[in-house]
Order: sequence, then C-alpha cells, then structure tokens
Amino acid sequence: MTHYVSHSRRLRATPFTPGVEAAGVKAYTVYNRMLLPTVFEDVEYDYHHLKQHVQVWDVSVERQVELAGPDAARLMQMLTPRDLGRMQEDQCYYVPIINEAGGMLNDPVAIKHDADRWWISIADSDLRLWVRGLAVGAGLDVQVFEPDVSPLAVQGPKADALMERVFGEAVHNIRFFRQKRLGFGGTSFIVARSGYSKQGGFEIYVEGAEHGMPLWEALFEAGADLNVRPGCPNLIERIEGGLLSYGNDMTEANTPLECGLGKFCTGAGKVDHVGRAALARELEIGPKQKIRPLSIADAALLPARTAWPLFDGARQVGQVTSCAWSPDFQTNVAIGMVSAACDATGASLTVITPEGRRAARIEPHFWC
Amino acid sequence: MTHYVSHSRRLRATPFTPGVEAAGVKAYTVYNRMLLPTVFEDVEYDYHHLKQHVQVWDVSVERQVELAGPDAARLMQMLTPRDLGRMQEDQCYYVPIINEAGGMLNDPVAIKHDADRWWISIADSDLRLWVRGLAVGAGLDVQVFEPDVSPLAVQGPKADALMERVFGEAVHNIRFFRQKRLGFGGTSFIVARSGYSKQGGFEIYVEGAEHGMPLWEALFEAGADLNVRPGCPNLIERIEGGLLSYGNDMTEANTPLECGLGKFCTGAGKVDHVGRAALARELEIGPKQKIRPLSIADAALLPARTAWPLFDGARQVGQVTSCAWSPDFQTNVAIGMVSAACDATGASLTVITPEGRRAARIEPHFWC
Repeated sequence: MTHYVSHSRRLRATPFTPGVEAAGVKAYTVYNRMLLPTVFEDVEYDYHHLKQHVQVWDVSVERQVELAGPDAARLMQMLTPRDLGRMQEDQCYYVPIINEAGGMLNDPVAIKHDADRWWISIADSDLRLWVRGLAVGAGLDVQVFEPDVSPLAVQGPKADALMERVFGEAVHNIRFFRQKRLGFGGTSFIVARSGYSKQGGFEIYVEGAEHGMPLWEALFEAGADLNVRPGCPNLIERIEGGLLSYGNDMTEANTPLECGLGKFCTGAGKVDHVGRAALARELEIGPKQKIRPLSIADAALLPARTAWPLFDGARQVGQVTSCAWSPDFQTNVAIGMVSAACDATGASLTVITPEGRRAARIEPHFWC
Repeated sequence: MTHYVSHSRRLRATPFTPGVEAAGVKAYTVYNRMLLPTVFEDVEYDYHHLKQHVQVWDVSVERQVELAGPDAARLMQMLTPRDLGRMQEDQCYYVPIINEAGGMLNDPVAIKHDADRWWISIADSDLRLWVRGLAVGAGLDVQVFEPDVSPLAVQGPKADALMERVFGEAVHNIRFFRQKRLGFGGTSFIVARSGYSKQGGFEIYVEGAEHGMPLWEALFEAGADLNVRPGCPNLIERIEGGLLSYGNDMTEANTPLECGLGKFCTGAGKVDHVGRAALARELEIGPKQKIRPLSIADAALLPARTAWPLFDGARQVGQVTSCAWSPDFQTNVAIGMVSAACDATGASLTVITPEGRRAARIEPHFWC
C-alpha cells in the first residue's frame, strides 16, 4: 500500500536535501523528525549498486547530541554501561544507552573531542531530551544541545577511492571506527571509517549546513567514473548484515543483552551508569529473549510494517521485526526477537505475515 | 514535489490504522514516530467537510506520558510554569513545558487523574525522555512511561450529535477543556471537550488498543446520516484558527512568551519549575520576537516545507513557518515569528517563498 508523505517544516529538510531531490529521490522515511531518503531507483537496484560501486548517503538524521562542560565526561559515563575509561580521542564507540530499568533508549556512536566535549551520533529517539533532563535533574555543570552537524556517508567498495580524491591519501590511514579531522574547502570535518552498511566506507561529520551542498557536489564530480550514485541505508543489505534498527528491531522494552550488545557492556558492575542494578540482575539470570537472524520460506514478502508473531507450534516464541527479500541469498532475510527458551539454531518456526503463515528458521549467523 | 513514505515498524501504526487505510487515506506525516493521516479526499475537500459536518480523526500520535507515584505532582509542577495548584480533576490544562534555559520542549495538554497520577498528551517531541531523565537525575519516586492510550478525535459542528449517539447525553455536560469518564462496550474512556480544530468537538482517550476499531466502527455506523467522514488535523483550518504546531511554528529555540503563551505562565515567580530564572528574566525584558498571523498576497502558495525569511525592506525581521491557501478567506493564511521591533499590526513586509517574493501583512488576529 502506497501513501505520500506530507511535507512541512516539522519534517526537517537537511543541508543535502536539494541534492537528494535533484537526484530524484522517490521515497522518504522520517527519522529523528528529519527526512531520510529510502529509495532512489528502487530498493533492489540501489542494493546491487551499493555492493558494486560507491554511494553518497544523506544521513543527516544521525543528529548529534553535544555534551560540553566540566561534567561532560561524568555525564557521558552515566549514560552507558560501556566503560569509557580507556577510550582514545580518535575512537568511535558504539554505546548502548539504557534507562534506570535497563531498557534501551538509543544505540548511538560516541565521539570524544576531549574529556570535556563529546558528540553522540544518535539513532531514532530524541536522546538529547533524556541526556539534558538527566543533567538538569542531577544539577550537573554541562551543556547539552544539538550542534549544526549533519553526517554524510560514503559507502561501498569504491568508497576509499572516492574519498581519496576529495580528502587526500590520509583517508586510507583511518582504521575501522577511528576518526580524523580532514580539510575541505577552507574548513575541516571529522571523517570516520564507519557507516550503516557492511560494504565499507566513511561518515563525514559536516559541521555547518552551508558546507553541505559544496561537499555533495565535490563527491559527485570526483566520482563520475566510479559510477557514484546517491543512496541511503538499504533495507535488504542492512538485514543481511545484521545491522539493527532502533525502533524496528529493538525498543525501550528491550535490554542490551536481548539485543546482543552484551559485549559492549564492558563497564557493567564497574562504572557508575544509569541502570547499573537492572543490568546486574539481568547479567545474573540471562536475557529472556534474544535478537536472531531468521530466514522465511517461499516467495518474496513485502517489508514488515508491524512486528509479525512467531510461533513454535501453538506457543508464541517471539516476533519478526524486519524482513526483506534478498536477491543475493534468494530467501527472505529477517531479524526477530526470539524467546531464550527457543533459540536453538536451526529451529523450525512459523511466522504470521500479512501474506499468510510461513515457515521460518533461526539461522546460525547473519548473511555477511 | 511528491514522495512516497516507506513504511516500517519504526513508523508506528495505530489501533485505528486498519480503519484509516480502508477509508483510503492518501498521505501521512510522521508525528512522535507514529503515522498521522494528512489527506483523505484532498486538503481542501477535507477542510470544507470539517466545517460543515463531523469527522473522526486518528490522533493516536498524541501519545500520553504517564507520571505515577508519590512524587508525580511535584514532578508535574517542575515541568511547567503554569500553576497547577488549583487544577481540578476534571480539567484539561494546556501546559507549556520548558527547559532550564526557557526553551519550549512541548506544548501538551495535561490531565490529572489524581495527585499521584497524571497524563500529558504530547505534541511532537519525545517528552517522555525529558520527564524521565529529570526524574532519574533528581532521584524522584515516580514512574514515567507511555501507557497504551490512543486518542481519537471527533470534530466538526455535528460532533455533539454524533457523540451523543455513542456515549449518551452526558457528552453535552462536558464543558470546554473538561473531561469525564464515559462507558463504551464494557469499558470506559476519558472523553474531553477539546481537539486540534476550531470547529468544536471531543477527544476520546482510548485505553487499550483492542478497543480502537470497535469504537471507530461504532462512530461510523452511528453517524452515517450525519455525513461522518474520516479526517485529520487540517492544515488550512488550523492556520486560520491560529492553532500552533510544535516543530513548525515553534521549536526549542523559542520561549513561551515568543509563542504567545504568557497567559499560561500563571506560576511564573511563584511555583518551583525548571526554567524559572530564565522565564523571570524574559518577563522583565519582554520577548524579542512573537508569533503573529500573516496574510500573503497573490495566488495560492504551496505549503511551507522550510521557514521562509521575512523582510522589512532590507532587514530580516522574522520568518513564516506555516502557510496555506484559504478558500474561505481567499488569501494565503500564514503563521510567522516576527521581531518585536517590527510587530505593528498592518505592517507591510516581504516574504521570500520558493515561488518568489510576495507581499505579506501582519494581521490583527487569526481568521476565526
């Protein structure tokens, strides 16, 4: 079923929207109250192109929450069970953020400018309000706000080649989940080797909306012979790669352990963070459910608009939260939350989709 | 320019979505990460119908933030400069919510179940995160969460007639911005005389998603001869009526005084609320800008997707944030934020729209 989106100032445009729309974007989603492109040619065409060439993605929706001031480091550690003690200033840290009951509030990437200044590059919730409320409630000496920063991603196997042409050879020395400040047109941006695909690439933290379109145009000019195209996070590719989507695959009702993020809870029981007691309890008894990769049998399914119930015989054992037909793996690839009592790899389950009952299988790992 | 919306679980459906889509909704916006219908027939047809008949609106996006516990009343008063001291239990209070710097975080309607239990029916920001962060930071004894409540509005001149058929004569005794609990199909809902139009009507706080479609169907069955139709907040009608939209006409960068909400700040200087010092300063010096009704000359303009700069000669004096062509008033009706140095009613200004420069005039009042 197709519906138009009604535009308004409230669904914020980005510094790259003129480029995105000139390139013929066909569909949007709304993410952090901002427009996120979802389709240029079609999802399948965009998918194949992403895996072969290089794409420029307007991911301005990854808004930054800036923490600045004497209590910034203390507040930052309060937010997450990940131990930030040894984080270096060129590192990007994936940090589960939880509430006092242990529920996931966001799964952002943090950047440390220095001990007194941090950015949190957020998934789809107004995390700034949580962080600022916490700071005001606790009387901390820190400013919490959204700076004028809009990330632009360059993703795909030719990302290094394209980025070198615009930012120079220094890009090759940026390791995975590390960042470096590089010059562009009289200014400079933080450039990180990261991004919401498994095809490799970079995210450029564009400071100052006025630099958005010049950078967009520079990338397209430099990449013409690399077959550069505008793109966006691709539903099929991100499910194949097991990249979780906050709001789809997890919500505040889920814990980091349920989401398979236990490995990032390195400060559990050690550092002073919100939700410490709740997390300790769950570490003791184990999560009651877990995110798993699932394949769903038979013909291509339309993407999930709601959670699809998952059954083991007559007993509901979970739900499928994301699904897409994979051309490369010739199956419906899916992400679901499955009861710990029933998470044996290979288990044969049934999922109730809008297109009828289908057989589903828990896979040993994501597809790539 | 038209774009499709890409559906996913993250853009939450509502208990009424099956009814909305069966009725042929054409476009959506996203509001509080949930689908809000924007067009059924077309915006102008929906507008005329709203002013003549009665419509049922899926406004589930007005999510509730529930505050429950011994510190609920104290926390509720911390949130707003409106004095809640004399609020009665059947009242609905429009409450500006501000941060510690005096910036608007939301402009919701509060309902008081009793001193220890409140609902806040929110505009478009994750206010729950602010409230919960504040509570955790300050160590208050209160639970803050989103209950399973989805408001359904009945709006238009025939709203009383339709509501009586479903909820009985008691609906007539509900005064403006008062509420009463009324029975429906073995359960009961809070019913308030309120809503986001100037045509009169009610909002039903539907507790329990399973009651959504039965109520939807009961209203359409009862209202066939009243020419009841599905509807939604109407862009033209809400601008004519001066109903502000958080995220469009005001943001966190604006204060309640700038938004013309000074009359709701009855507790300023008296009650203990976040942003007390900032508000006191602004009350002393006055707001530097104010929301005003504006008419924009010449042919019908497309709705504003971004803020349009407003000039007095060569000097920028503000911006237009919402605009629509009004068939009833035969002009482009608009809402803008205008410098206090230039807010003389009747002032002739210039606005830069995507369709060119236009003459704009500050009106003495909204249109109805």
